[in-house]
Amino acid sequence: MILNYRAIIKISGILILILAGLMLPSLLVSFFYGEGDAINAFLLSIFSMLLVGSMITFTVKADFAHLKIRDGFAIVALCWTLSSLLGAIPFIISGYIPNFFDAFFETVSGFTTTGSSILTDIEALPKGLLFWRSFTHWVGGMGILVLAIALLPMLGINGQRIARAETTGPIFGKLTPKISESSKILYTIYVGMTLLEIILLLPGEMTLFDAMIHTFGSVGTGGFSNYNTSIAHYDNAYYEIVISVFMLLAATNFTLYYYVLKGRWKDFFSDSELRLYLLIVAISVLLIAFNLWLNDSYNSMGQSVRYALFQSASIITTTGYASANYDLWPAFSKMILFILMFIGGCSSSTGGGIKVIRILLLFKLLRRGVGIRLHPRAVFSTKINEKPIPADTISAVVSFIFLYMGIYFVGTLLLSLENFDLITTASAVAACLGNIGPGFNLVGPVLNYSIFSDLSKLMLSILMLVGRLELFTIILLFTRYFWNPDK
Amino acid sequence: MILNYRAIIKISGILILILAGLMLPSLLVSFFYGEGDAINAFLLSIFSMLLVGSMITFTVKADFAHLKIRDGFAIVALCWTLSSLLGAIPFIISGYIPNFFDAFFETVSGFTTTGSSILTDIEALPKGLLFWRSFTHWVGGMGILVLAIALLPMLGINGQRIARAETTGPIFGKLTPKISESSKILYTIYVGMTLLEIILLLPGEMTLFDAMIHTFGSVGTGGFSNYNTSIAHYDNAYYEIVISVFMLLAATNFTLYYYVLKGRWKDFFSDSELRLYLLIVAISVLLIAFNLWLNDSYNSMGQSVRYALFQSASIITTTGYASANYDLWPAFSKMILFILMFIGGCSSSTGGGIKVIRILLLFKLLRRGVGIRLHPRAVFSTKINEKPIPADTISAVVSFIFLYMGIYFVGTLLLSLENFDLITTASAVAACLGNIGPGFNLVGPVLNYSIFSDLSKLMLSILMLVGRLELFTIILLFTRYFWNPDK
Repeated sequence: MILNYRAIIKISGILILILAGLMLPSLLVSFFYGEGDAINAFLLSIFSMLLVGSMITFTVKADFAHLKIRDGFAIVALCWTLSSLLGAIPFIISGYIPNFFDAFFETVSGFTTTGSSILTDIEALPKGLLFWRSFTHWVGGMGILVLAIALLPMLGINGQRIARAETTGPIFGKLTPKISESSKILYTIYVGMTLLEIILLLPGEMTLFDAMIHTFGSVGTGGFSNYNTSIAHYDNAYYEIVISVFMLLAATNFTLYYYVLKGRWKDFFSDSELRLYLLIVAISVLLIAFNLWLNDSYNSMGQSVRYALFQSASIITTTGYASANYDLWPAFSKMILFILMFIGGCSSSTGGGIKVIRILLLFKLLRRGVGIRLHPRAVFSTKINEKPIPADTISAVVSFIFLYMGIYFVGTLLLSLENFDLITTASAVAACLGNIGPGFNLVGPVLNYSIFSDLSKLMLSILMLVGRLELFTIILLFTRYFWNPDK
Repeated sequence: MILNYRAIIKISGILILILAGLMLPSLLVSFFYGEGDAINAFLLSIFSMLLVGSMITFTVKADFAHLKIRDGFAIVALCWTLSSLLGAIPFIISGYIPNFFDAFFETVSGFTTTGSSILTDIEALPKGLLFWRSFTHWVGGMGILVLAIALLPMLGINGQRIARAETTGPIFGKLTPKISESSKILYTIYVGMTLLEIILLLPGEMTLFDAMIHTFGSVGTGGFSNYNTSIAHYDNAYYEIVISVFMLLAATNFTLYYYVLKGRWKDFFSDSELRLYLLIVAISVLLIAFNLWLNDSYNSMGQSVRYALFQSASIITTTGYASANYDLWPAFSKMILFILMFIGGCSSSTGGGIKVIRILLLFKLLRRGVGIRLHPRAVFSTKINEKPIPADTISAVVSFIFLYMGIYFVGTLLLSLENFDLITTASAVAACLGNIGPGFNLVGPVLNYSIFSDLSKLMLSILMLVGRLELFTIILLFTRYFWNPDK
């Protein structure tokens, strides 16, 4: 058999049980606020998932010892799709998002930490559902599968194959020889970061509920808010700074925090990807701030910097929170934000997009390309962090970027069949594929994705998954290579 | 010395003389139509250029035997810039385009076979100037330097170094061992094609003058017309078909015509680039025609095919003629045209853009990228026309495409400072860099580039040159590699 179907089915069963468990906090929130319809929806979802999950897990016998790369890709793709399908159930049965395609879109958008919404009035939802919606960001942020990698080894399952398809970015600096150890460390950092942000957001107008919602949205680089106007609801510079910092931290390579914990500050500060990432943020903030200031968009240079910083951080980290309606900004500022949508966060972070490390390698390739034109016989080696990059890594990065652009153009072409203006179309696809959230014009920060047909919503949902799983995992499943046992 | 300055100056002198000669037909046209202001402008231009050109050519002593690659790049860049500067003189001194930046833009647009115009009323110009404007397309089409390669060897100058920087596309199938012989063959085909189109355009409404203008525009893949509404002026399906065919022929690899002349039809039809090129055109025509038909843009399916064919051919060949105001078409059709702007014509043709051969290689790289993900240890070789592509060609193509996209984004960012909508901005840069001509919205087919400031016009002029000279030739001049004698 091409795939180890028994193992895949058994893992699905375990995943269903995990998802049921993950819904418990949202059920508690619904109880706390006494929201009858949300309580019923969660109780029904959890109960049926426990039933189905247990049946699968305890009846299917599977051999986890011989998982192949092929199986790993299939498991990852299946788990994300299944989570999004099951996660949509509470929205549907509560009646708050009755349309399946809408509920699926919203849940995919949550788990993939995109933050695009089809809701025209977010504030109309019960708090329990809003909590679940944002909690999917938090779960998705580090990857349901990284969680699974920390749990599955206890069940005697080798997670290595899964991690290969899961981890983001081309270069994954192994923290410890055992991958389960590594993911536990990453996970601890993630939880610590979450607690710290909640505490920092508590002083002032935000309730504990608000603080948790916006923390999930920022450490997961998701972008769901419980207010229609996103962060602009508070109009509070302190919140904006705290959230900016945590968005930027969440889109930084988590391996680097391990260096920090071990006191290896030199390794931290000399990281080429981190430097380029911060440089891009700094340049973007400066350029946008000057543009806003010269354009008299805000009263002072200070205000211009404030909005420029928050929005640059929000877009490059692929979070998608808005502290202002940036769709009204001048064309130059919007163009910078549009370019940031493609760059995205660092490798091994919760951010999406093409990733800064690939952009770095791209610059190095371009420099080599120019050099070779003048000196056809010279040998140029490409180095990052003073280590030469092997040719097959370069080739993988190159195909990744081309595939990203290719999928982007095909997606835009398909969405243009809706016959909305090209800015709406092009930015919607960029924002979904890059896991950002809002785009420009009709999908701008104060609007939403409800304008599209069900079919387009489904396509955008797939694009979010494709972007989140770094293209190849999903795309592979649609190739004949994958389904041909001889290849 | 880093560069062979004497040789470069002497070649500039020769170029000035050639340009003076190239203005003679336009002078004759002005005489024929009795246009006093145009006659004066051309006489003055030609006389002063002959004077300056002779002075340089006959006083500077230069050694052409030791031209380096570096010199080749410098000569090519200089010749194109100088031609555009000198070619602008008649527009300026006649008073019809008094602003230097406008006149430079128009002439660069001509020589680079772009066809973008700053003229709000084309029909107000004397016929002599309109002839010169379109004649620059024809001259630029095959490259002033291919002309030079056919002439310079008679003067004992080795053109090999120059051709390296000049020829378009990564793979240049040598026709004959001697490059001067090859360019004579290419040139003969070009002249033959020109005469044939003029003859085919004569029956009907077009005068000989009109036929020549539109032939220069199509075989040069330029796109200047002598009417404000471009080809739509005639509303004639016969003209549209003739022009479509010649645009498509002009953007086909000219090496293939040599095969046809030698009766090697198998080599012609089995060419992978030609097949992909025709496939892209066919798919585009079908998709646009269906979209226009379903959208009720035109009365019948026949009419939809008619306009879809002309516009697809016009855009992929980077000509830019319009038989309809395609800016009013539905978003899907516009998106296809926008993607075609980036693809461009075939290698070794008069078309611009990224070129079909590079897109072909890109598809092959993507297929390899997917295969490698599943079989990390397998060896995949990349072949075109059954010949394996060497690694350094692949690497050159990859850097080309990345550089193209990079320049595109930087150009769009700079142009967005004008604060026009993003569609105008993004399409203007794509249309100039790809040597197409018109874009969308404010630079759509019935509008022009007069809306931009002088600085932006200058930047767009540079982008046209950068696009025409396949990026590296111009970009190299701005690198420290180029000016460092030790490198």
